[in-house]
Amino acid sequence: MAVDGVRLEQRHGKARVRVGRVWREPCGRHHFVEWNVSISLLSDCLPAYTDGNNSDIVATDTMKNTVYVKAKECNQPLSSEEFAIVLGKHFTSFYQQVTAAIINIIEKPWERICIDGQPHEHGFKLGSEKHTTEVIVKKSGALQIVSGIEGLAVLKTTQSGFEGFIRDKYTILPETRERMLATEVTAFWRYPFETLASIPAKELYFTEKYMDVKKVLIETFFGPIKGGVYSPSVQSTLYYMAKAVLARVPDVSSVKLKMPNLHFLPVNLSSKDNPVIVKFEDDVYLPTDEPHGSIEATLSRIHSKM
Amino acid sequence: MAVDGVRLEQRHGKARVRVGRVWREPCGRHHFVEWNVSISLLSDCLPAYTDGNNSDIVATDTMKNTVYVKAKECNQPLSSEEFAIVLGKHFTSFYQQVTAAIINIIEKPWERICIDGQPHEHGFKLGSEKHTTEVIVKKSGALQIVSGIEGLAVLKTTQSGFEGFIRDKYTILPETRERMLATEVTAFWRYPFETLASIPAKELYFTEKYMDVKKVLIETFFGPIKGGVYSPSVQSTLYYMAKAVLARVPDVSSVKLKMPNLHFLPVNLSSKDNPVIVKFEDDVYLPTDEPHGSIEATLSRIHSKM
Amino acid sequence: MAVDGVRLEQRHGKARVRVGRVWREPCGRHHFVEWNVSISLLSDCLPAYTDGNNSDIVATDTMKNTVYVKAKECNQPLSSEEFAIVLGKHFTSFYQQVTAAIINIIEKPWERICIDGQPHEHGFKLGSEKHTTEVIVKKSGALQIVSGIEGLAVLKTTQSGFEGFIRDKYTILPETRERMLATEVTAFWRYPFETLASIPAKELYFTEKYMDVKKVLIETFFGPIKGGVYSPSVQSTLYYMAKAVLARVPDVSSVKLKMPNLHFLPVNLSSKDNPVIVKFEDDVYLPTDEPHGSIEATLSRIHSKM
Amino acid sequence: MAVDGVRLEQRHGKARVRVGRVWREPCGRHHFVEWNVSISLLSDCLPAYTDGNNSDIVATDTMKNTVYVKAKECNQPLSSEEFAIVLGKHFTSFYQQVTAAIINIIEKPWERICIDGQPHEHGFKLGSEKHTTEVIVKKSGALQIVSGIEGLAVLKTTQSGFEGFIRDKYTILPETRERMLATEVTAFWRYPFETLASIPAKELYFTEKYMDVKKVLIETFFGPIKGGVYSPSVQSTLYYMAKAVLARVPDVSSVKLKMPNLHFLPVNLSSKDNPVIVKFEDDVYLPTDEPHGSIEATLSRIHSKM
Repeated sequence: MAVDGVRLEQRHGKARVRVGRVWREPCGRHHFVEWNVSISLLSDCLPAYTDGNNSDIVATDTMKNTVYVKAKECNQPLSSEEFAIVLGKHFTSFYQQVTAAIINIIEKPWERICIDGQPHEHGFKLGSEKHTTEVIVKKSGALQIVSGIEGLAVLKTTQSGFEGFIRDKYTILPETRERMLATEVTAFWRYPFETLASIPAKELYFTEKYMDVKKVLIETFFGPIKGGVYSPSVQSTLYYMAKAVLARVPDVSSVKLKMPNLHFLPVNLSSKDNPVIVKFEDDVYLPTDEPHGSIEATLSRIHSKM
Repeated sequence: MAVDGVRLEQRHGKARVRVGRVWREPCGRHHFVEWNVSISLLSDCLPAYTDGNNSDIVATDTMKNTVYVKAKECNQPLSSEEFAIVLGKHFTSFYQQVTAAIINIIEKPWERICIDGQPHEHGFKLGSEKHTTEVIVKKSGALQIVSGIEGLAVLKTTQSGFEGFIRDKYTILPETRERMLATEVTAFWRYPFETLASIPAKELYFTEKYMDVKKVLIETFFGPIKGGVYSPSVQSTLYYMAKAVLARVPDVSSVKLKMPNLHFLPVNLSSKDNPVIVKFEDDVYLPTDEPHGSIEATLSRIHSKM
Repeated sequence: MAVDGVRLEQRHGKARVRVGRVWREPCGRHHFVEWNVSISLLSDCLPAYTDGNNSDIVATDTMKNTVYVKAKECNQPLSSEEFAIVLGKHFTSFYQQVTAAIINIIEKPWERICIDGQPHEHGFKLGSEKHTTEVIVKKSGALQIVSGIEGLAVLKTTQSGFEGFIRDKYTILPETRERMLATEVTAFWRYPFETLASIPAKELYFTEKYMDVKKVLIETFFGPIKGGVYSPSVQSTLYYMAKAVLARVPDVSSVKLKMPNLHFLPVNLSSKDNPVIVKFEDDVYLPTDEPHGSIEATLSRIHSKM
Repeated sequence: MAVDGVRLEQRHGKARVRVGRVWREPCGRHHFVEWNVSISLLSDCLPAYTDGNNSDIVATDTMKNTVYVKAKECNQPLSSEEFAIVLGKHFTSFYQQVTAAIINIIEKPWERICIDGQPHEHGFKLGSEKHTTEVIVKKSGALQIVSGIEGLAVLKTTQSGFEGFIRDKYTILPETRERMLATEVTAFWRYPFETLASIPAKELYFTEKYMDVKKVLIETFFGPIKGGVYSPSVQSTLYYMAKAVLARVPDVSSVKLKMPNLHFLPVNLSSKDNPVIVKFEDDVYLPTDEPHGSIEATLSRIHSKM
């Protein structure tokens, strides 16, 4: 958008709109979600920037209200992806000025509580990793759905090594076939649905896929319960996790993983007077958050985009 | 401690010492804990403050080293309470200057991963709420053990109300018999053991008690899986949770609960032109973190201290 | 409070009540504060805990409303201490059930912006360290005022050492007369006023004292602008800072300082092949947040309490 | 990169490498910076992902070491942009496998302390907003420098309104010509230098430009110290801030601003019994963090890229 000799790109929206939604079944069983919704609109509203003329502006307060109206209208449990689509569709169709809507949702990991193994009708407890989604809807009806996991922290106490890397005058790290491997996985995966009509009608379809992807990531990271699987590097483990997602979850067209290497340093302590205060024998570690390795990659089916 | 016409109280220590400890069973099964240890020493070292004379100072770096030495020496899995006792005992007996040691440990909630319901030999995943402990050891051998839970977030979508409270000119809140109830429980409980000799010899005894207390808190908060239990106030629910801990966990001499009331506000929206944009029907909520109610209480067996 | 064979101690309140207050002078100059207020009441409301009877409960929502009512009523700029006193007085006098009120306020460090050295009429920018206060008012009229600074991060690149401390088999730290010294000071100081009547009538008195204490702490930590002052330990520096507060701010009856030792580790790097990759010459440091030394002390005038 | 029927994009690096650097002038004056450095390398190392062959991998530990080596080698004070260039140049020239290096640095806002208006030789205090930079260096020598400000929180108590926006059935927000305006500015600006040779030789050039941009942003946001300047929307204010940067800082080729609208809600309280508990008169506000408006835009000179 050229104006006054400069080019302007802009968007505006409302972030961190929190909404809780309860659905009550006649049998007494309650369903519950808590979402943190962020909306960002691409719209034709240049005069708001250049002339203080707000006549084409959708107020961000109105966007917030709309989240509650739409949450109310959803009278059956639905996944965060479906709710994001509802919102994106609304903003691009209701407002002539809006050319695209970007909807991000983070679902708080409330899990139905079990007491003595039995699920409670209306009780929930907070779990750990989070389900996220980003949905982009264009006025043309074009659609992009990316879902994700945030904060999946996993660790194995063995079956990890790192050898044969470049050695030069800045290299200190010894090679090893025995170390801890810890990471906090962030995953994003893209669905192939490019129009509203193509989305599966199955209830909670995206919630089920989220569980599928998480299961594949976890199983591939850890390997068999007896013996596990050897990891020659975070890179390699990440690659096999991403490959397994593509292999086992057909509806995923590409997957991006970020896997920081959260180091557990071997503890060896010595002093001039005492050459062995603590000698490391795969037993005592110093866990650190910083610095950390940062390894990320995207695997796509050829012809897919992400 | 009077000096130069003023009174001085002091302590020094090392905080946030992180240690990971792995124990490997011959069968291939690994045990793992990650602790964040803080040490604070009461000691006779006045000249360090007043005269720049450090001859009675235990360096905080030395305290940190000691954590690793002691972790190394523990060649069997042990609870954070037991490790805190090991440390407290060391500092008060090894250093003539040290009159008391206060040891705090927060255990990171790594949980053994299960794949298809089967426990993995060496794989762990981060859970949510945390086990904490504070142990105070005096040179005399006097001991105090307080354990705790941090971050136990629970929520029920019904069976909660709040009625009959004081109404005055500042009161707006309507009375209700139907609301969400959400809180993040922080719990502390004191054990009756006042000497090292009196501590149960049973392995992982404190870990087991932690699980017991957590189970009692959760069951009392939620009530039966069908129908739950009505909460007339956070105060009442807190009281019954604390009472249940004393009733069902005999080794606890007192229990303190902090239960912020994390409000889920009913969503009603209207404007001058549109008197009903959203009408609340126990369905759409605005979750908030601030402000929040803050309710806390300590229940002690008569003759106990906390 | 004994009940059902157990002893109960309890309090309830509202935390994180945020309020912004603007005062406009006729000349066009605005005054502005943003406070985060927490209220905790000790009150006679046992039946709420034991019998689900809320008739003696001040709803925490009512406490929140009261903050806004009282902020409205304050039609002149006032310090957070004075506002806390207003609130504490209100709760203990208005409600027969309330025996004591504990009011905590954290003031957000908005500072009037200066443009080319000139103060702006109505513009503010966020600074760093925060002014805090805790005021306790009892029904009897007894009063306790503790004010504080939070987050005062200071660092000097020289004039710090640590020598002559205890050396034993766990000691690795070398002695030094040259190191960085960095800390984030938390300070609390108590005023001697024990009744409402004894509080100085001077406008913004407590704000001025806050500035005085901060100035003394900073000047004592750093020493002269040429050459500074040598610190033989955090303990010693803390002691002289606290002493200076008592010496130079007569209205302070006691002062508590917490000064974590935030380590800047000398960087020395070597490998088997390369014995000197980086050799430390008081130039390159690794700053760390964890672990850190934790040094704290309280200095009181004899016969004072804190 | 196509492999096994899938396409792979990848990068790896080291994040959160912390380094402090002191330079001592013979006169006794010290210079000090603390940087948090993140490095990400694009490199030809596919076999590490697919075959567990690490022979083309630069270990992230080696990257970390390099930060310290290079910090040591810099024997004069330099800006974070210049240090990022040093690192980027090193990684792309030293390693044949590395095709591009992305270096991010966040500088901790240590400011030289002044005592009675005089600068201290070696004393520093932490300020608020942060200077950031992202430098991308390609093997070809192509260069991109983006610098930024993070956390510049500003607020004005008047001279802000919002009127004439779209009104529909979801709109509740009243129009106003009098409200608070608060935001936390994040700014990024791109320099036009595309090769190493083209960078100005002037010492601390980028530090000076950072100060220039910050000054322009602040002055444009607030307007004259008497009377200020009216803001008809965050969009408009953002636009004029960005335009002023382009107008007054010629070396900036484009600028991106993110300015969340941090709402200060008017406080009006009423109940059925008491229709006016608090009536808003531009005096008492409820500050909120969530939800917040999110407004962002990029202004570029025509023919520039960002």
